[in-house]
Amino acid sequence: MDTIKQYISENKERLLAELIALLKIPSVSADSKYKKDVLKTADFILESLKKAGCDKVELCETPGYPIIYGEKIIDKNLPTVLVYGHYDVQPADPLELWDSPPYEPVIKKTEIHPEGAIFARGSCDDKGQMFMHVKALEYMTSKGKLPCNVKFMIEGEEEVGSESLSWFVPRNKEKLANDVILISDTGMIANDIPSITTGLRGLSYVEVEVTGPNRDLHSGLYGGAVANPINVLTKMIASLHDENNHITIPDFYDKVEDLSTSERAEMAKAPFSLNDYKKALDIDAVYGEKDYSTNERNSIRPTLDVNGIWGGYTGEGAKTVIASKAYAKISMRLVPNQDWKEITQLFKTHFESIAPKGVKVAVTPHHGGQGYVTPIDNVGYKAASKAYETTFGKTPIPQRSGGSIPIVALFEQELKSKTILMGFGLNSDAIHSPNEHFGIWNYLKGIETIPYFYKYFTELSK
Amino acid sequence: MDTIKQYISENKERLLAELIALLKIPSVSADSKYKKDVLKTADFILESLKKAGCDKVELCETPGYPIIYGEKIIDKNLPTVLVYGHYDVQPADPLELWDSPPYEPVIKKTEIHPEGAIFARGSCDDKGQMFMHVKALEYMTSKGKLPCNVKFMIEGEEEVGSESLSWFVPRNKEKLANDVILISDTGMIANDIPSITTGLRGLSYVEVEVTGPNRDLHSGLYGGAVANPINVLTKMIASLHDENNHITIPDFYDKVEDLSTSERAEMAKAPFSLNDYKKALDIDAVYGEKDYSTNERNSIRPTLDVNGIWGGYTGEGAKTVIASKAYAKISMRLVPNQDWKEITQLFKTHFESIAPKGVKVAVTPHHGGQGYVTPIDNVGYKAASKAYETTFGKTPIPQRSGGSIPIVALFEQELKSKTILMGFGLNSDAIHSPNEHFGIWNYLKGIETIPYFYKYFTELSK
Repeated sequence: MDTIKQYISENKERLLAELIALLKIPSVSADSKYKKDVLKTADFILESLKKAGCDKVELCETPGYPIIYGEKIIDKNLPTVLVYGHYDVQPADPLELWDSPPYEPVIKKTEIHPEGAIFARGSCDDKGQMFMHVKALEYMTSKGKLPCNVKFMIEGEEEVGSESLSWFVPRNKEKLANDVILISDTGMIANDIPSITTGLRGLSYVEVEVTGPNRDLHSGLYGGAVANPINVLTKMIASLHDENNHITIPDFYDKVEDLSTSERAEMAKAPFSLNDYKKALDIDAVYGEKDYSTNERNSIRPTLDVNGIWGGYTGEGAKTVIASKAYAKISMRLVPNQDWKEITQLFKTHFESIAPKGVKVAVTPHHGGQGYVTPIDNVGYKAASKAYETTFGKTPIPQRSGGSIPIVALFEQELKSKTILMGFGLNSDAIHSPNEHFGIWNYLKGIETIPYFYKYFTELSK
Repeated sequence: MDTIKQYISENKERLLAELIALLKIPSVSADSKYKKDVLKTADFILESLKKAGCDKVELCETPGYPIIYGEKIIDKNLPTVLVYGHYDVQPADPLELWDSPPYEPVIKKTEIHPEGAIFARGSCDDKGQMFMHVKALEYMTSKGKLPCNVKFMIEGEEEVGSESLSWFVPRNKEKLANDVILISDTGMIANDIPSITTGLRGLSYVEVEVTGPNRDLHSGLYGGAVANPINVLTKMIASLHDENNHITIPDFYDKVEDLSTSERAEMAKAPFSLNDYKKALDIDAVYGEKDYSTNERNSIRPTLDVNGIWGGYTGEGAKTVIASKAYAKISMRLVPNQDWKEITQLFKTHFESIAPKGVKVAVTPHHGGQGYVTPIDNVGYKAASKAYETTFGKTPIPQRSGGSIPIVALFEQELKSKTILMGFGLNSDAIHSPNEHFGIWNYLKGIETIPYFYKYFTELSK
């Protein structure tokens, strides 16, 4: 299959130009002012799948943004790969921290990406990684190299909780029937240390609102005599972790799996430099749950982080006001076996119970999803591992990720198939942050590796 | 001195019309687009003082807006009263919450003001209250009733920190020499419960910034493994109060005066309905420092309130981000003897000391001012008390206010005289808020009461 390298070499400029065209559309699902752009992106994906050789493409209406479905069935007796990805992106805020506009992609070289990286919102998460699959399909169909059936399901609400996908999947089990699900929406350790993600954390995302007096008050006339919603909110949030950075919500850890000493020893073998980690983030110390290493804290342990907080006067200068309301957005990353709906309820019950007199508290769940673990002894994992071996010359390391793709647990439940997470991004790619980028080397390496997955999966499934 | 009642009765329409003309000029000192109007207002005051009988009036240039000075010296051996007030007003925003345009005064009856109130920005704070003094002077000079010397100093920057006044006063000590300073820029308990403000709190206002990682991070990949600046900020702010709502900054209370049991008992006599207070604010409980009443908490005790907080994603929907930075604006109301510069330094030292490893903390002082207490056994207080007794038929209650007028401490320091705070406004007059108003009864009662202050102050000074 040497021709894939040749194909990439001959088509490199076009492969980049097409991705750049896709990145120019600001498909922010969280903000309704981008609705037209999100829909335009859906059309872009539909056309791309058609051109890549799908026999059938459909824009599937949902209660929210459409899901793009595509398929090429070559033989019902051959296995079927279902590719999942998303065409929506995170908001680009804070805009002022971007070195170039988020929707005007530019290619720049970096220390980690000496061959250049594309800087744009969504370049890695997930337009770039999803588009690798479209381009790999294009190669396989145009060169007669597709060894099995393939289906695509690309959604537009991953960054806001995949609600419409949760509605769509149970209603389309037959259409989506498959032997393995393939996703590129995670990362690998380094360009010379390929890895396959075998675990994802679950997620519960809530918004809290604390209301004190019915109007903003003069802090001189009322200060010290009424509950200040901002002070109260900080006290409530602070109490959610104890002095060892354990989460204090009752029953929160009940279902958390304790890894054995040998499992933790195995994890500790993954290459990791604490000094490089601190240097890259410009911090003098890491911070987290007592008795766990950094790699454990962000993969096998649940967390609780405030993702946003606001209230009172935040403009220039000073205003002596006691705000009527204060708000925070809080998310919990969960480990397998923790049920996100149960955890959301535990949070709500606890947070409401710790509100002092003098304020009212409202907790609104945003969205969530279950964690997931892929066993490494299944055919899909083995095929992926061989594919990396072929193109990287190294056996990839199985690795648990701290991130969440809530929909993966639903796929297993509804479609009864395993998901393989072949990620080609790097942690340093700044996904969800200003200056998100995706290495050109990584993009092309993904396109190169994916066809081998199809080849080995078909062979190993016989 | 029955003739003052008669004078008011005969001149009522003109007294109102002149104030309304003054209120029509939008003298917003905070916004440079109103510069012409602020200067026009200064001229209006100058002319008013001339017409009211001052022998000498001056528009005194300063680095900012001019200070209007006026005097009538009848006998160097008689005492001198210095009247202070301000002709600038707060911005009117948010405009959409006004029932009538802020600079088109209208008279409307309300439950509290059955005789009508003038609705306009500045009607109470401080144009209406300051103008009472001009009209009282007019009465005294025109009817040969001025018993002592009088000086006026009316500034145009009170709502933005009185910087030019702080520059002017030390440079004009001789011109401003006086035996008592008289200010109407505070309130009283109710129209049938006259009170005199005897204490003002000081203020220290700071801004804090907590920096964690050098960029916003994905909360899945980094959550639980690095210090989240928002979580850290909430923990730091929460730790500034203990479980009894005492402030935990070391040495913070060192200079706070402990009131005696009898002084506190005296304070407790002021009419106050906790139920009405809670109902007006729609809260189910008050909240504050243990072992102190609501009226003590917002007057004789220092406080620490967050006036604004922000960080991370605060838009619509959800974003799973760990912010690089989190911010808060924090103000402390101080009681007499607490030095605001010392307290600001104590805050800074303490707040920096409690920062955990993994974050950097910056504390930036905004501004501040000293608190003030008028002893009730001095001649000025006694004269004011007798004046209220004469016109209200009741002894006024001495009352500490939770608010701050930082310039009062400067007057004592530079001019060595006590300030008497004869306020005729009510808390419900909505100063600094939409629909500011001032009762016609209160305006006229002020004009009626002020000449008695001059009378009794002169008599008691003999």
